[in-house]
Parts: sequence; structure tokens; C-alpha cells
Amino acid sequence: MSTAAPWKQLILKALETNSNIKHSTYFQLATVAQDGRPSNRTVVFRGFQGDSDRIKINTDTRTRKIEELKHCPFAEICWYFTDSWEQFRINGRVDMIDETNSDPSKLQERERSWFASSATSKLQYVGAHPGLPYISEEPPPQVYIDPTSGPVSTFCLLVLDPYQVYSSQTIYSVNDATFYLTFVR
Amino acid sequence: MSTAAPWKQLILKALETNSNIKHSTYFQLATVAQDGRPSNRTVVFRGFQGDSDRIKINTDTRTRKIEELKHCPFAEICWYFTDSWEQFRINGRVDMIDETNSDPSKLQERERSWFASSATSKLQYVGAHPGLPYISEEPPPQVYIDPTSGPVSTFCLLVLDPYQVYSSQTIYSVNDATFYLTFVR
Repeated sequence: MSTAAPWKQLILKALETNSNIKHSTYFQLATVAQDGRPSNRTVVFRGFQGDSDRIKINTDTRTRKIEELKHCPFAEICWYFTDSWEQFRINGRVDMIDETNSDPSKLQERERSWFASSATSKLQYVGAHPGLPYISEEPPPQVYIDPTSGPVSTFCLLVLDPYQVYSSQTIYSVNDATFYLTFVR
Repeated sequence: MSTAAPWKQLILKALETNSNIKHSTYFQLATVAQDGRPSNRTVVFRGFQGDSDRIKINTDTRTRKIEELKHCPFAEICWYFTDSWEQFRINGRVDMIDETNSDPSKLQERERSWFASSATSKLQYVGAHPGLPYISEEPPPQVYIDPTSGPVSTFCLLVLDPYQVYSSQTIYSVNDATFYLTFVR
């Protein structure tokens, strides 16, 4: 029997309401850099982990967020649904699962996330370093990835385990009053 | 003569390209909380300060970001334009201008930002505490704000002075190759 957190049900509903727009699965992930300053970028929601309320994100081991999460494993997601005007702020601890992980069940989860990715998504992991400028004006050479092959070494699965969730829903559109729900685990 | 930063020109262009969508002026602002963990929320772009490349944001002095910015004055904006698939990451130092500010020119800037706000926006500053649940099912009592009155005490202007800007533009849509531009001041 599913024991989904109340905020998870709200997110599933928001995803349904906003399913007509492609970017409804995009959200912003904030981390803290080594110098103590904030860092923020758009990432893609890759679903919940099994029946849990943990959030999956795919990333490249060569991105700055990896170094930042090694330094400080906490992140806050800001997920704004542009059609329904709903915002979810989800903070929690992030588990990084790359190919060196020693837990077989986590490596399996990483593999599942790789195979669930589109061919286009997969290609990003074999391209130029994601943090460096792509200086050529020519498109990069075509690379073929065998669809039956497992994850490449740069592929990393992030799993955010939510600790606190703030949800705001505009319920009175006339005067912009806002209804806040806070869920703390 | 305007000496706009190159990234500012790209943002002005993106705002024009995405002007058909209301949320094109919304972005996510990441800060760092007192416990060293990241914090992230959606705010509204209120324009550049004069001819400069400094970014204006209105906020309520009672929000958590104010305490966080007092602790760590750095922030990173993640501005994703959903129509053109462009992302700008803008980090910099934030100047907080509330009614206690001792600089007359900054107080004038705060006043200008207040008068540039809509009646609906202004009402948010006299409502219930923005960080607390609004527990009644009734709409809050109607409040009238004299349009000729100056800013209320909870109104605070944030001015982010950009230090580094990352811009990504998808130039080859077929294989999702990404072109990165980085501007450092």
C-alpha cells in the first residue's frame, strides 16, 4: 500500500495539471559552492525512486554541482509550475550514485535511470566537457551509443531525500493572498 | 552612451523573444541559510537599475531570504526562458534597501520600485506574515492602499550586482549540443 507524503500527492497533481507543457518537469536545484556561496541551475525531474518520496535527477560527473555536493550534500529544489502558479520548495540531502558506488542496489538504480533516458539525453554524457565552452561553430561529431549498453562513466544519478517541503498555492487570485503548506518530516 | 554588458544584451533579447509568456520575468534566487544549507525560491525581475547591469527584485522584509542575505550577501539567479530554452546563471552580491537605509539615493530607488509596483503586488506587503500559514478559509480582509502613498515598512528592494554570468544557448537542437558563454567581470 502506498504511503505517499501529502506534498508528493500535490506534486503528482501539479504534474498532471501542467502536463501540456514540456518544461513542467524542469526545476531549479540550489547547492552551496566550496567558497560558501550559492549555486543554482535548471535540472530535469526523473521521477520518484520506487514508491518513496525521494527525487531522482540525472547529471554528469564533470559538472560543478558534483564537487559542490561532495563539499555540502544539501540542496533545495525550487519547482515552479507555470500553468497552475504553484511553487514547491523541497530541501534535503543528496545521495550521489556514480559508477564507483559500492552498493549493488544503488548501481542498479543508476542503470535503470540510464536506460530510461532518451538517446538525446545519453549523448550529452559523451560530449565535450559540460563546463567548458564549445568553441567550434560546427556541430560536434555524431556519436552512436548502443541502446543496449549500460551507463557511461560520466553518468551520475542524484537522489534527493526530502527533509522539508514548502508548498504555496494561490487560492484567491483577486488579491494574491497565498496559502502556505509546510511539510516537515 | 550605453555600455551594456554582453550578457545583458542577451537577456534583453531573451525577454523580447519570450515576451508572450507572463512568467518570462520570473527566476529562481538561491541564497545560503544560517546553517550553511542552500535556499531557493521564485522571484520577479523588476528591471535593471538605471543603465547599469544590476538586477532589481522586490521583497518583503519578513521573508527568510532577508535573514539569509544578512548572513551571506551572495546569491545566484537561475533564469530559464522556457520558450527559447535559454538559461542564465547570474551570481553576485545583493544590496538590501529597506526603510532604514541611510543613503538618500538608495531610498529614492526603493521608492521608485514601490511606485512601479501594481496595486496587487503592493497588497502582499500589508497581508499576513508571508512565512506563516494563512489558516482561514475566508479571503483576508480587503485593504486599501493609497496609490499616492510611499512604500510600506515591509517593502524592501534587493539589488544584485552581477559578478559572473553563465549563459547556455541550445544552438544544435538535433543532438542537444550546448554552447556555453561565460562572462566574468
